[in-house]
Amino acid sequence: MNYNAIESSWIGILGGGQLGRMLALSGYPLGLRFRIFDPSPLAPAGHLAEHVQGAYDDTAALDRFVEGLSVVSYEFENVPVQTARHLNQRAPVYPPPQALETAQDRLSEKTLFQKLGVETPPFAPLFSLEELTEAVARVGLPAVLKTRRLGYDGKGQAVLRTPEDVERAHALLRGSELILEGFVPFERELSILGVRGRDGASVFYPLVENHHRDGILRLSLAPAPGDLRVLQQRAEAICLQVMKALDYVGVLAIEFFQHNGRLLANEMAPRVHNSGHWSMEGAEVSQFENHIRAIAGLPLGSTRVRGCAAMLNLIGELPGLSQPLGEPRAHAHFYGKAPAPGRKVGHINIVTETADERADVIRKFANCPGVYDIQPRA
Amino acid sequence: MNYNAIESSWIGILGGGQLGRMLALSGYPLGLRFRIFDPSPLAPAGHLAEHVQGAYDDTAALDRFVEGLSVVSYEFENVPVQTARHLNQRAPVYPPPQALETAQDRLSEKTLFQKLGVETPPFAPLFSLEELTEAVARVGLPAVLKTRRLGYDGKGQAVLRTPEDVERAHALLRGSELILEGFVPFERELSILGVRGRDGASVFYPLVENHHRDGILRLSLAPAPGDLRVLQQRAEAICLQVMKALDYVGVLAIEFFQHNGRLLANEMAPRVHNSGHWSMEGAEVSQFENHIRAIAGLPLGSTRVRGCAAMLNLIGELPGLSQPLGEPRAHAHFYGKAPAPGRKVGHINIVTETADERADVIRKFANCPGVYDIQPRA
Repeated sequence: MNYNAIESSWIGILGGGQLGRMLALSGYPLGLRFRIFDPSPLAPAGHLAEHVQGAYDDTAALDRFVEGLSVVSYEFENVPVQTARHLNQRAPVYPPPQALETAQDRLSEKTLFQKLGVETPPFAPLFSLEELTEAVARVGLPAVLKTRRLGYDGKGQAVLRTPEDVERAHALLRGSELILEGFVPFERELSILGVRGRDGASVFYPLVENHHRDGILRLSLAPAPGDLRVLQQRAEAICLQVMKALDYVGVLAIEFFQHNGRLLANEMAPRVHNSGHWSMEGAEVSQFENHIRAIAGLPLGSTRVRGCAAMLNLIGELPGLSQPLGEPRAHAHFYGKAPAPGRKVGHINIVTETADERADVIRKFANCPGVYDIQPRA
Repeated sequence: MNYNAIESSWIGILGGGQLGRMLALSGYPLGLRFRIFDPSPLAPAGHLAEHVQGAYDDTAALDRFVEGLSVVSYEFENVPVQTARHLNQRAPVYPPPQALETAQDRLSEKTLFQKLGVETPPFAPLFSLEELTEAVARVGLPAVLKTRRLGYDGKGQAVLRTPEDVERAHALLRGSELILEGFVPFERELSILGVRGRDGASVFYPLVENHHRDGILRLSLAPAPGDLRVLQQRAEAICLQVMKALDYVGVLAIEFFQHNGRLLANEMAPRVHNSGHWSMEGAEVSQFENHIRAIAGLPLGSTRVRGCAAMLNLIGELPGLSQPLGEPRAHAHFYGKAPAPGRKVGHINIVTETADERADVIRKFANCPGVYDIQPRA
């Protein structure tokens, strides 16, 4: 067979984990090509994309990476802002470096929400642990003490319930910039995913209900159960405001606490997000394809949900493939990563016609390896 | 990020064109890895899979290719049977080499149909062009003279309408093994795609209506319009018979002529098929993923159609991506091949709720570059 050479647009992704992998998988059908940058030779996106290996401060490796790329994106918000700015001189980086910078610091993030009039849980910055007593006085107990940077999946956090916890926290988190967040007795966590194109057009996925265990997302329900017309409108308005403020391009995820009919913004992620994985089969166009469309300057795709969707994370271990594939309403996504405690190694997407049916299928996976047994309301 | 090494199952695909590419794309979410074998350095599946380059009779290259593979498949039926048999000594080859052998020869194919009691158009083998006159007498005019081997997309065929055409055919097809097929004044072409697992389980997609132009598929409608309950049952029974006879594993496509409420088997393809591309968004599980599931010994997936689907081939040229992506009910699949006259370079999938809506969307693409304007009945 003779194929001839073709000029394709190349997209670069910083980080070659499961998010980079799923971004590439969703962009290949558009005829695009992918190059990932990851320090590890085992990065699973490297199974299916060009892989430039290097440290995030290795400018020579970054320059090799960016050569010929049309656009650069990233799969995690702990990419050094310096790295993004360096690459941005050679190819546009989306979401823009200022979004990365804001999302990397829980204080900047919360301050932005506040500036835009978006309600958040009470919070207080701490520039040293010595200020903790004063911050506790302002925010009250229980509260969550968090590092301002580099926290994810519940890491870098301590829940403070008693004065003794406050004492212990001194030892735990010494030397980090911190933020103390008031504990909100919320009914549930919801997240919204918005997508903004290079032309400023935007679309939104429906609010998703998220269930965590030990700080790690285990289950998402999309759409979230209940009549959410009012909250959906509010969440979209907040997401749009944030995207406009940051001159945003790509998928933006915002996590909220739902409390007494209100939404309190908890945090945001300037990237495709675990709570959007259901969209791969559950929506007309997935968050991954929509992120690629956005950063490539293409029209955004429909976010319409196909019935009722759910996502079960597979953490620490994988079932045999036959287990998810034996259920007709389930789809398997294995990331090509070796299982290890607490590691996200795959997820199962479920698409059904009704919420009751969705609950039934979720129940079937209660004892599946990697799944934490959570029984949501139908 | 630390990923550790993971032991994955490797799947090998002979041929790195669009079918190999879409097979790999559908198998990566299952955590599988892919290696393709293709003589061309530009094989588009090579953008996203390991690529061993070599001629199909280069046993050293084939041995490098098969090293460590769990299973081997192929994306086109003109893979030399010798190649398949050679690899089969090292890893199972599915569909099995005997299916490849049968499908490579229009005479064996038709003879198998006949043996199984499956109606076909009248045909006569020719071992030399000298027998043409006699064959024409048996089959009648008009008829189609075809090479028994290596024909595809209307290549290696001559339509004979008059005695003069018969004369001309002598010059055109000298030196090939030939078959003369009676011309059936069929109402339409339908195809069925069946999938058979290693355990003998089978599933079927709904009958698809296919429209060709110059011997190349341009449009498929799935499900085919009209009440096809009886024909669907008949087509599934035929497909199952053929799969059993060949001890088949994988996706098998059979093309039929519909004529006076009957199905006449025209040809089969022992692989994923262009008339099944609609299944990527149009069915619960695509033909590509189901082929991978079948050859990997995994449970087969649901073939349920999501509403009404259609596929428009993009031949010879590609539109800008914004054209298909600007239509919310369309999905773009570009293959990463350079456009050239008659070359399949992509397709557009359409999924709608009703057949009328499907016809509307198809009409919108009437003037799209690469699309041949065909107006099917709703």
